[in-house]
Amino acid sequence: MTHHHPIRIGILTVSDRASKGEYEDLGGPAVFDYLKRVLKTEFEPIAHIIPDDLSLIRQNLEHLCDVDVCSLVITTGGTGPAPRDVTPEATEAAAEKLLPGFGELMRSTSLQNVPTAILSRQTAAIRGRSLILNLPGKPKAIAECLDAVFPAIPYCIDLIGGPYIETDEQHIKAFRPKSAAKS
Amino acid sequence: MTHHHPIRIGILTVSDRASKGEYEDLGGPAVFDYLKRVLKTEFEPIAHIIPDDLSLIRQNLEHLCDVDVCSLVITTGGTGPAPRDVTPEATEAAAEKLLPGFGELMRSTSLQNVPTAILSRQTAAIRGRSLILNLPGKPKAIAECLDAVFPAIPYCIDLIGGPYIETDEQHIKAFRPKSAAKS
Amino acid sequence: MTHHHPIRIGILTVSDRASKGEYEDLGGPAVFDYLKRVLKTEFEPIAHIIPDDLSLIRQNLEHLCDVDVCSLVITTGGTGPAPRDVTPEATEAAAEKLLPGFGELMRSTSLQNVPTAILSRQTAAIRGRSLILNLPGKPKAIAECLDAVFPAIPYCIDLIGGPYIETDEQHIKAFRPKSAAKS
Repeated sequence: MTHHHPIRIGILTVSDRASKGEYEDLGGPAVFDYLKRVLKTEFEPIAHIIPDDLSLIRQNLEHLCDVDVCSLVITTGGTGPAPRDVTPEATEAAAEKLLPGFGELMRSTSLQNVPTAILSRQTAAIRGRSLILNLPGKPKAIAECLDAVFPAIPYCIDLIGGPYIETDEQHIKAFRPKSAAKS
Repeated sequence: MTHHHPIRIGILTVSDRASKGEYEDLGGPAVFDYLKRVLKTEFEPIAHIIPDDLSLIRQNLEHLCDVDVCSLVITTGGTGPAPRDVTPEATEAAAEKLLPGFGELMRSTSLQNVPTAILSRQTAAIRGRSLILNLPGKPKAIAECLDAVFPAIPYCIDLIGGPYIETDEQHIKAFRPKSAAKS
Repeated sequence: MTHHHPIRIGILTVSDRASKGEYEDLGGPAVFDYLKRVLKTEFEPIAHIIPDDLSLIRQNLEHLCDVDVCSLVITTGGTGPAPRDVTPEATEAAAEKLLPGFGELMRSTSLQNVPTAILSRQTAAIRGRSLILNLPGKPKAIAECLDAVFPAIPYCIDLIGGPYIETDEQHIKAFRPKSAAKS
């Protein structure tokens, strides 16, 4: 390992009530705990709690990608069909590319537990050298979705010119094709 | 049950030939029969048969949602790749939010029977307090798709501020998370 | 068989390096070999190798559809998350209709082999009487994806007014509903 600076990972909790302190943010800590468990590469989390406001979410995503230079930005909350759920719209607005396969796999995975998994509109997107990933708000669903997609995340970040990320193989076996040498 | 007015459900058959009376509409009645079988909540159907015309479909969807105040609007027909198939485009035009999980699940379900299921572009969308759902035109495929997605529909309508809908659990077991109390 | 002219199939290799001759195009030949193996209907391939440039890809797609009158146009390469990967964007730009079921099925099929299948943004689209299909660049993934979606391709081309295509049933059993008579 020659990479000496910790990578940065944005954790954006999107919730009207959590942002007002009306209840405790459970999503953000669940994402952080998951990352601490599965990443071998040192990372610095940058966490915010904001309300379900489309332009505010978009601004935060863009700042986390462009100014904070996060390689990975994970949102939690705001992906359902309710009027205030606009995280996917904000992600699309900030995106250079959408990656529909992430949403498809997270929905089909959650569908094994609850038929309402199809109500989630979560997606993933590329902005510059950052991967943005939407997750649901509930801790159980967060771990379930991350288990499904995380094996593809390190190679995705390689492909967009980000840092080389290593996972603890006991938790997540990151996949890279044989043709992909460590840069 | 304190809800005394029947809910309204739009049933929109989209077919050039059925709208001209060149053949019998089988899709609309199949949707109605299905709803009568699975819903315990009383409902009033509002059914129309219209040609495959993008602005006409859009106008009908908007009227069923905004003026007729249907909680659920189900279209049948017009979801394939042929030039006159424009129901998904009309649905997108009328939509405030798209719910890609419905189309994904309906396609993967139909795929267990026919490999041409991937030709269907059916989707679902939210407009105000209405859920719009595209179905294929054939009765067999209609029941198959509704069986797959219906367990998620009552909770979806809860989330957008619609009426509390109950199903006959012998046919469809509607799922609501424990945290969702009847309002 | 009364169809005397061979149908035309476009094969568009999208790769900066292959277009400069920096390495051999493996994707285009893999597509051609596959088609030769599975199609009973005589076809004339029109193959080009071009760089990962959005407007160039779009122009080529439109020319293959509109001027060369290809019933099927298959791209290989440029579907990933990297900055130069823009084949799906070019396909969307050239499309009259998108067929999301193709991308969903190809990703879920490849996912059985590699977890990074969710990074592919490949899609399919209709333009006039042509079906455009995006494939990955690697020969193994090309065959895997074509095996998954090819049974639906002949009927799709029927529906958009293209020629009647027959496959060698030992390789691919094309599916047409009983109601669809040979025209």
